[in-house]
Formats: sequence, structure tokens, C-alpha cells
Amino acid sequence: MNTSTNRRQFLKTASLGLAAAALAPAATKRAAAQGNAGVPPAPPIKLGLASYTVRKFDYEKIVLPFVKRLGLARMTIKDSHLPMNASDEQIRETIAKAKALGIPPYACGTVYMKTPAEVERAFQYASVAGFEMIVGAPNVDLLPLAEKQVKATNIKLAIHNHGPDNPLYSSPLDAHALIKDMDPRMGLCLDVTHTQRLGLDPLAVYRTTFERVYDIHFKDVSAPSKAGKTVEAGRGMMDLVGFLKLIVALNYAGTLSFEFEKDSDDPFVGVAESIGYTRGVLKAIGSAWC
Amino acid sequence: MNTSTNRRQFLKTASLGLAAAALAPAATKRAAAQGNAGVPPAPPIKLGLASYTVRKFDYEKIVLPFVKRLGLARMTIKDSHLPMNASDEQIRETIAKAKALGIPPYACGTVYMKTPAEVERAFQYASVAGFEMIVGAPNVDLLPLAEKQVKATNIKLAIHNHGPDNPLYSSPLDAHALIKDMDPRMGLCLDVTHTQRLGLDPLAVYRTTFERVYDIHFKDVSAPSKAGKTVEAGRGMMDLVGFLKLIVALNYAGTLSFEFEKDSDDPFVGVAESIGYTRGVLKAIGSAWC
Repeated sequence: MNTSTNRRQFLKTASLGLAAAALAPAATKRAAAQGNAGVPPAPPIKLGLASYTVRKFDYEKIVLPFVKRLGLARMTIKDSHLPMNASDEQIRETIAKAKALGIPPYACGTVYMKTPAEVERAFQYASVAGFEMIVGAPNVDLLPLAEKQVKATNIKLAIHNHGPDNPLYSSPLDAHALIKDMDPRMGLCLDVTHTQRLGLDPLAVYRTTFERVYDIHFKDVSAPSKAGKTVEAGRGMMDLVGFLKLIVALNYAGTLSFEFEKDSDDPFVGVAESIGYTRGVLKAIGSAWC
Repeated sequence: MNTSTNRRQFLKTASLGLAAAALAPAATKRAAAQGNAGVPPAPPIKLGLASYTVRKFDYEKIVLPFVKRLGLARMTIKDSHLPMNASDEQIRETIAKAKALGIPPYACGTVYMKTPAEVERAFQYASVAGFEMIVGAPNVDLLPLAEKQVKATNIKLAIHNHGPDNPLYSSPLDAHALIKDMDPRMGLCLDVTHTQRLGLDPLAVYRTTFERVYDIHFKDVSAPSKAGKTVEAGRGMMDLVGFLKLIVALNYAGTLSFEFEKDSDDPFVGVAESIGYTRGVLKAIGSAWC
């Protein structure tokens, strides 16, 4: 089966089995525009590393060579590798080192913002770095200020859900309800395991929120409850194949960002296995990655 | 699509597009026996590590914990971890350490055998260890003696093809021609990249030889020529998805053994990515692994 056939088949199944919300406006518009030519192949799924995964390791000596070795073409930067109070020069140097290796950081995060000054600083930091997005969690009362900053800088804000461990945006649905009528550059970083740990179905959540999902923290989890721990992709209880089929069918244009909380003193082998698993599934379902 | 549907689809496609040799007698017999119930799900694909991959590392401190961490349930042992001249006691102790961790070695190899004494020693060593198989390369004139030893010990011999680097069994087809009329326990360890590096199509070779393929060295390669180097599964030029669909459809009952020649001083990340990739493909095509 080629990619187009896979996608037609998926959309046919989706139209039979799912609510109307499951249908991707973009995909259906493209299908209608193409007529009998069918749905064009989905764009490649972009893979990246969230540097939180390797937060305990030296950025230049360990992190950058590791991202390169994994064959990834992009990353996000955690403040452990680029402090929020870094000078403009430090910011530019840090980004330049990654760009020189062909792995440009597209976002920072997760950035917590508890005061107006922290919101303003986050967007200033991201502007200097040239990020297209902040993966963040501003306090709820700071969302209007964050939206102002999004408009002023043209930098997206993707709100990260943290499941049962943190009452601030426990559920991506909470965050979605708060931002869905705001500027369209206000969106979500959907953390699939924290969603699952809250007892929600990440596929159902994605179907509801996908038009605002700009980044995804991707991994597997041992149990669909607070007790669930991150495990290597494919070794947990999640329907990752179903999730990947869904994001391909709905033309996900953001990055699948590998965040791996397990084995923080030696996360290399586990995250490599997870990236391999994801590439294997994508290849087998007829999707390219980059 | 469930597994049965996948397999019916595959066999239908296979029956249209391939030579009669492509049809698995076992699978077709099972399909006939089941009548309208269709082909039963294939057994899980067994995954294991060839300890050659980690030949430079300490067996007890590094190799066994690594195999365990990868979630593998079996392995093969290279002589770097268990010398061919080990005492019976050393052999039993080495095997017992792996068994205690739930990762029983099922074979040794690759074992080169250049004299009658080396053939006899290999089978004696394997008998003491309790291996079900030797992955080996006896000189061609020693094959009749090897067959005698197979009959005497009930230990299979899987002949390893080494591609353009070694004239002894360069091609799995050469080895197959030599053993196909010998005892049915004389078979092949199909090294997929060495096959590809010889300019052969591993899928076509598997279709021709599958009834005698007892072990598979699994990985990817950068080019289909002598210049081709081992790379992480999914990053090379091989049709690994097609190969995995084929072995599932033809009820492969041996082990997919991960042999990874790249980065011999630090192979851990690369082989983990390859194992993840393989699991991802298997999951997406509806096959279980163990």
C-alpha cells in the first residue's frame, strides 16, 4: 500500500467510526481540491529532541553530539542548557553552536512563568534566540499578557500539560479551553504520557485539539494513572501506532519532540530506542520523517 | 486491520506477484486447515542480541545488564565472551549467569572451523553449554563431518554468509546449495546486510531459502555493494519493512539477532535504536515480538 492509499483508507475508517470532529479540515479540503487524484501524501513528520531529556549533561560536549548521532535535525532547549537569565551574547552563542551542527533549536521549554516579568523575559529570551515557539506554562492569570507578547513577537506559545503531578494545566483540555478563542498562535504542547496518566485518551484529545497542537512530547508510559512511569516507546500501554496514524492523517505540521524522563543519569540508550521505534512505525504506516 | 487480515492480504498479494516458491507450505497448510477461519496469527518474532555487537565489553558487568536493559529475552555468545577452549566448568558458569537474568543464550557464533578438530570442539562446547544451534562457518570440505556432529548432538548448524569480505560462503545461496540435501538441521544464519552488500535481494533470498533459515543477523546498510557499511535500522537503503512482513507471513520461527558492526567502541545507542525500529515496524504490521 502506498501512502496515499493508507491515508484514504484511514480517512474512510475515520469517517465511519469517529465523530465529525475527527475529520481534518485541511485534509478534507485538500482531498476535495484533488478530486479523483486522492489525498496527497502527508508531509514528513519532524522529529526532535527535548533537551530536558539530557538535562544533566554538558550541552556542547554531550548533548549536541548526541542529537547529531541520533540523526535528528532539530531540538528544543531547556533552561539547564541556556539559563533564562543568560545574556544576549550567551544566547546567540548557544544557538549558533547547535545551528553549526545542523540541529537548530526551534523552541525553549518547558518555561514556567509566575510573574509578568517572567512572561516578558521568556519572550525576550526567545526573540534573541530566534525561536519560533515557547513551550511553556504561564500562570493562568498571565495568559492575556502572554497573548500580547505572542502578538508583539510573532512567537507561538505552546502550553504544556503536566498531568496529575501539577494542578497547572493538568489536562490539555483545560489549557485548550483557555486559549481556543485567543490568538491562533496560542496553542498546546501535547504531552502524550501526562495526558494518558490523567486517564484521558491521547487520541481523543488530539482529535479535539489538533488545530492548536503545535508541539508534542512523545514517549510511552507503564500505566494510565498517576503511578505510570515513562518507558521506552513500544514497551508501555499506549496506542502509539494509532496515535502516529492519527497525526499523519491529520497533517500534523509540528515536531514530535522526544522527552524521556526515565534514567536521567543515563537516558541515551532509552531515548534512542524510542526514536527508533517511532521511525519504524512511521515507515511501516507509509509516512516519511525528517 | 488485525493481524489475520494483514496476513491474508499479504498471502493474497504474494500469490499474485511471486513465484510459487514464495508460498509458505506451513502457512498455506494452516490456512487450508482453518478453512473460513483464515490464517491464525503468526507467532511472535523472537528478538535477541548477538554478543559480537558488544565484543569489546565485559560479559558480566556490561553485556548482560545491557541485554537485560534492552528488554531482550535471548542472546548468542561470541568467543570473546566464552573462549572456544573454555573448560566445561567455565562454560556452565558463563551460561548460568545469563540464564539467571532470564536471557538464555541459544547459540554461539559465528564459529569458524578450519580443521576436523575444530568442528568436533565446536559441537562439544555447544553441547556443554546447552545451545540449540551453532552459527558457524566450517570449511566446505568439513560439511560432511559437521553434519555427522549435528546428527550425533541434535544441535543445529546455521551457516553464516559473509558477503564480499570473505570467499567462504559469500552468498547464502552458495551455503544453501551445499546443505539443502543434507540433514534438515543443517541450515543458514541469513546475514541480511552481507546479502545486500553482495548485490542480492534479501527478500528474494529469504523466499528461496526460508525453510532452512534458522537464525537472522538483522541490521541496515548504507549501500548495496562492498562499500556498504552497517547503519542503524531504518537509516540505510534496505527494505526492512518488506523483509519483516515477509518473515512474519512465512512464519519465521527463529530469532532476529541484532548484530551491529558499527561503533564497536560504543555500540549501545545504535543497536538500541535498531531494536526500537524493528519493534516499531513489527507492531505497526500487526506482529507481536518477544
